[in-house]
Amino acid sequence: MAEILVAAAPWRPLLHSALQSNSHIRHASYFQLATVAANGRPSNRTVVFRGFRHGSDTIQINTDSRTRKIEEIRLCPYGEVCWYFTESWEQFRLSGKIEIVDGSNTDPLKLQLREKSWFSSSLKSRNQYLGPSPGLPHLNEERHEEPLLDQSTGPVPAFCLLLLDPEQVDYLNLKSNKRLIFISRQTDESNYCWVEEVTDKNG
Amino acid sequence: MAEILVAAAPWRPLLHSALQSNSHIRHASYFQLATVAANGRPSNRTVVFRGFRHGSDTIQINTDSRTRKIEEIRLCPYGEVCWYFTESWEQFRLSGKIEIVDGSNTDPLKLQLREKSWFSSSLKSRNQYLGPSPGLPHLNEERHEEPLLDQSTGPVPAFCLLLLDPEQVDYLNLKSNKRLIFISRQTDESNYCWVEEVTDKNG
Repeated sequence: MAEILVAAAPWRPLLHSALQSNSHIRHASYFQLATVAANGRPSNRTVVFRGFRHGSDTIQINTDSRTRKIEEIRLCPYGEVCWYFTESWEQFRLSGKIEIVDGSNTDPLKLQLREKSWFSSSLKSRNQYLGPSPGLPHLNEERHEEPLLDQSTGPVPAFCLLLLDPEQVDYLNLKSNKRLIFISRQTDESNYCWVEEVTDKNG
Repeated sequence: MAEILVAAAPWRPLLHSALQSNSHIRHASYFQLATVAANGRPSNRTVVFRGFRHGSDTIQINTDSRTRKIEEIRLCPYGEVCWYFTESWEQFRLSGKIEIVDGSNTDPLKLQLREKSWFSSSLKSRNQYLGPSPGLPHLNEERHEEPLLDQSTGPVPAFCLLLLDPEQVDYLNLKSNKRLIFISRQTDESNYCWVEEVTDKNG
């Protein structure tokens, strides 16, 4: 195993380029998020990429606090995203710690993030958090129900923002047969850098 | 939670229909397989559906015995497949026990299955198991290397068949907003039946 030290997140340009070359495809912003259930078995479901937290590599996902993944993340706060781009044949596996940001969060900056993510969603998507039980995953922004909330209403209690902070990114390009692994390494208390790993082990 | 007792696997016609309506799309046979790593964290990667084991609901996946997923499955023999059909907006989450069938298996029927799966792969795909380290995932059957094996050579040591036996299937149709959960229940030592569960809990 060889290591090359790199400063900024070197996988971001790769992901940016994959998102751009697949931007005409609706499902390019969908990925599969794996977590671990209370019984120690894996869980896996499709969720929607809601962008990066400004100025960071943190991935944002909206979800309903009443879904199973929330119970799972409370017990085991780790996830692995598998993001396969069907047009460019690229796969990103991003693993790291997940933080749950609901209305009970005590950090004003986190609550602000949650609010921002709420208002970035369509009104139809926001209404899915109002039902007596969690709605279907919020892939479909074009639901046909009548909106129940007005534009100015802030996040409802069930609305939850997940923040996944990647610690390792495994990139695979099936057209060029290129594979790259990036690992985040703590350099001191508040800083980290990305290291590129050369490995012969695969998924 | 209400239960409806059903005999044959009631999710098979749904999956069959999804496969048919998405059959013109190359990536319709790709899904994400989640497992649990030795450190208790989730793992997730894209693999290819290689059909059902004849006369059963067991899902077949080909892989290289030197990949990380093999170590993981040996420690925790459970997986959850998340299969999202991008055209029909249907998601299947299939969870169950995974069996690894490599050349050291003592069951002649399992070895026969492995051989069958080997010969069902393209020659180019088979050649990927020959390198000094596991190749890229076998999504791409149209690699441009010269074949090194001939048509009659049987499975090489690195070739591994995974058998995932679904215990629970969670079906979601994002166009019709339909959601169904099917659970397999043991009725006696060698028989089981499928039960449809009505739940208000989501992914």
